[in-house]
Amino acid sequence: MHIFDEDTRVERAGAGTWSARISDRWGIGLVPNGGYVMSVAMAAMREELGGLDPLTVTSHFLRPASVGPARVEVEVVKTGRRFSTVSARLVQEAGEVLRLLGTWGRIERGGKPVYGAGAPPELPPRDSLAPAWSGSDEPAREGEMRMTIRERFDLRLDPATSGFLRGERGGAAELRGWLRFADGRAPDVHALGLLADALPPPAFNLLDPGWVPTVELTVHARAHPVGEWLRCVFRTRFIQNGLLEEDGEIWDESGSLVALSRQMAAMPQAQPRR
Amino acid sequence: MHIFDEDTRVERAGAGTWSARISDRWGIGLVPNGGYVMSVAMAAMREELGGLDPLTVTSHFLRPASVGPARVEVEVVKTGRRFSTVSARLVQEAGEVLRLLGTWGRIERGGKPVYGAGAPPELPPRDSLAPAWSGSDEPAREGEMRMTIRERFDLRLDPATSGFLRGERGGAAELRGWLRFADGRAPDVHALGLLADALPPPAFNLLDPGWVPTVELTVHARAHPVGEWLRCVFRTRFIQNGLLEEDGEIWDESGSLVALSRQMAAMPQAQPRR
Repeated sequence: MHIFDEDTRVERAGAGTWSARISDRWGIGLVPNGGYVMSVAMAAMREELGGLDPLTVTSHFLRPASVGPARVEVEVVKTGRRFSTVSARLVQEAGEVLRLLGTWGRIERGGKPVYGAGAPPELPPRDSLAPAWSGSDEPAREGEMRMTIRERFDLRLDPATSGFLRGERGGAAELRGWLRFADGRAPDVHALGLLADALPPPAFNLLDPGWVPTVELTVHARAHPVGEWLRCVFRTRFIQNGLLEEDGEIWDESGSLVALSRQMAAMPQAQPRR
Repeated sequence: MHIFDEDTRVERAGAGTWSARISDRWGIGLVPNGGYVMSVAMAAMREELGGLDPLTVTSHFLRPASVGPARVEVEVVKTGRRFSTVSARLVQEAGEVLRLLGTWGRIERGGKPVYGAGAPPELPPRDSLAPAWSGSDEPAREGEMRMTIRERFDLRLDPATSGFLRGERGGAAELRGWLRFADGRAPDVHALGLLADALPPPAFNLLDPGWVPTVELTVHARAHPVGEWLRCVFRTRFIQNGLLEEDGEIWDESGSLVALSRQMAAMPQAQPRR
């Protein structure tokens, strides 16, 4: 079993209630990555529906998650022939961590696009790129935050977009890169909450890095990914009123669009202390 | 009082429960516009919080609304110093119509962008453009659907993007235009659910028009709009697996970004009969 599947396992604990455990293997410092925690809740939503694919899922982030036990309470809002809508809350000892709302259905395999006015990001060949993190479990550049999440992925950022890794500021708030699970797990639509939140914030090219708390993350699944590697682009176009958006596109090895994502986040700040 | 405010009025009917009436003045054929119905629910969510601005609100569309009474049940998930999260359901006789999840807060007035990698859409001068609909309450081109919503807006589409109005197919699935309320109501963040769903689907430039049911609509409010007119661009980049996205940008007269929106919708089809 791959680490993502181990760490998003849920067990039925009552009618509409699932127990889970938030792992320390997806940490941004002391706080588990929000997209990972969202994926735990999505696992419970999926189980409650007896399968199906997430088509569009939104999560609102109420407080940082903690490593340890969690409970996911799922309400099936409506089941339909084509679309089934589900609400969920992920709760830990400190209170409710996430509230989610999503519509599930079936994505056909190999469906050809009727129309596509976009293309995968242009990237240098994977083999020409160094992994973004070396010795990835060492204290991170941006301070003393331990970033266990970096061990989970093989990320190859296009150097043209990752000046922040070299301490540069300027250019565009855009990151482009190749991404795969480090342990060989094939990406799928059930991991999209995590995958849409797996790269560093593109705003780090402009602003001093810090804790960028997600307010809300929505992901649209558009195809089942083919292959192991994903081609990703994440960009922030507007930073105003203390808020920013991060728009993501995730493409697969066959050149299909797998997902569109958008999150609203707050400006970089100090990470909450425990 | 302006029509939008009359038609989104809610009255407290119990703890967390608000009564409303879905008007026939925002119809797409027999079905009230989804963004309008979302705005009714958002009015109740706002009242339940005692004010505040919507920052990011998601609505999942479960069944078409009907003209007539509705009830909005609001659950305050969390109130915080900066962010307050609310869930709601809008229910009519046939059942639950919408399920919503949103985070509210305060958008400051006149906040200057820290970063903006985008600009308002380039549009011909308003006065050089004819209103998109003339005799707007007549049966629409796409059949016998009565479009009362057209009377509510003054919409000036850039002809370079609105070939579908002339029966043309091709080009890009993108609409750009000027938009204001026909009765002079100033746009504000509370109308963003409606405003993000007020234009025809950009996909009509490519596909035969029809009923394009929204699965989910998310709107991010980024600034309080200044002035009466909005500059809008809506585009669909990907149509695959029977689904499409519509991404919107709404800008104000001062050149500020007011909102980003994204919806997932299904391919054009026949409108449900009643």
